[in-house]
Amino acid sequence: MDTLRVQSGARIEFVNITDQIKRIVAQSGVREGSALVFVPHTTAGITINEAADPSVVQDINEALSKLVPYRGSYRHSEGNSDAHIKSSLVGSSVHVIISAGAVVLGTWQGIFFCEFDGPRSRKVHVEIVGKRSPGQA
Amino acid sequence: MDTLRVQSGARIEFVNITDQIKRIVAQSGVREGSALVFVPHTTAGITINEAADPSVVQDINEALSKLVPYRGSYRHSEGNSDAHIKSSLVGSSVHVIISAGAVVLGTWQGIFFCEFDGPRSRKVHVEIVGKRSPGQA
Amino acid sequence: MDTLRVQSGARIEFVNITDQIKRIVAQSGVREGSALVFVPHTTAGITINEAADPSVVQDINEALSKLVPYRGSYRHSEGNSDAHIKSSLVGSSVHVIISAGAVVLGTWQGIFFCEFDGPRSRKVHVEIVGKRSPGQA
Repeated sequence: MDTLRVQSGARIEFVNITDQIKRIVAQSGVREGSALVFVPHTTAGITINEAADPSVVQDINEALSKLVPYRGSYRHSEGNSDAHIKSSLVGSSVHVIISAGAVVLGTWQGIFFCEFDGPRSRKVHVEIVGKRSPGQA
Repeated sequence: MDTLRVQSGARIEFVNITDQIKRIVAQSGVREGSALVFVPHTTAGITINEAADPSVVQDINEALSKLVPYRGSYRHSEGNSDAHIKSSLVGSSVHVIISAGAVVLGTWQGIFFCEFDGPRSRKVHVEIVGKRSPGQA
Repeated sequence: MDTLRVQSGARIEFVNITDQIKRIVAQSGVREGSALVFVPHTTAGITINEAADPSVVQDINEALSKLVPYRGSYRHSEGNSDAHIKSSLVGSSVHVIISAGAVVLGTWQGIFFCEFDGPRSRKVHVEIVGKRSPGQA
């Protein structure tokens, strides 16, 4: 298992971590398999969406904040219930295929760490499963 | 990795791809393991839900369109921000267990490609991991 | 594949199944790998969120019910369309990393079965993939 650090700079922010994930996959030497990318936090999430135009993830962030307002009538007393709810809507992991030694992503896809209660120093775990060469388990 | 083609026929449509996934799993010969089904698009998604009554996925589609309206005040200029947002809500992959050579699904479950910005010709990647026989890695 | 039983006690309820998942992983003997936890139902889901303060999952449940009301104008005639929609929003599986023989979860994370149309007796499937010891496939 590898662990990478993500430093968010605002309460709500999508951080593009595609290059870090690609680097970990390349270093693993795995040719065919998959990478499970897991966020061990309950006020953050992870998603795959368009990385070319940064306005797309801003739209996603604003839509989430309309659906789940920051200041609602919540029970949890820490003032970040919106972040927990968004975390369960977006999810705490993504799973990508590794083929021919590379992460398989569509033309426009990037992997984004979703900060919902920052700014904070966060962790992302990556578990790679697969075969290093055709003859190897 | 296998890739299947999905042709959507409307802007918003859920396409049942369960049989195609079952066929790819059967052809793989894997007896125990899992199949990662991944959508390489940012204006589509994939979900598992009831396949018996087609009104269920219509309800899901309509509920998503109420939560994320087609014409909202979005930043992204291509007019499909709703599709990107729905993609992150529903997710870009599902993962199913393979046991005794078959995909393990509940009685009512089917796997649906979720088109949010069609009609288009789309791809779905399938990565199967597991053992072909009890003695094999 | 292992299967555990979950008995829900209300129409809408989050049931903490972290300890059962940890037990299955420990019994598997797998040291490095991952566990796919899959819900074979279309009116339930599974999510990872804070397990320390039970008001967090209550907030998530109430937020979902605000977004997707129980009594809406739905097509599906069984009166549980809200449960199907919530199932696709939250998702039907979670995937956790196994490292040094243990499930890798953040300090506050727990795994919750999400009942959206109970009370019912439900199943959760667990597929564990990985290596039992450094030298073994």
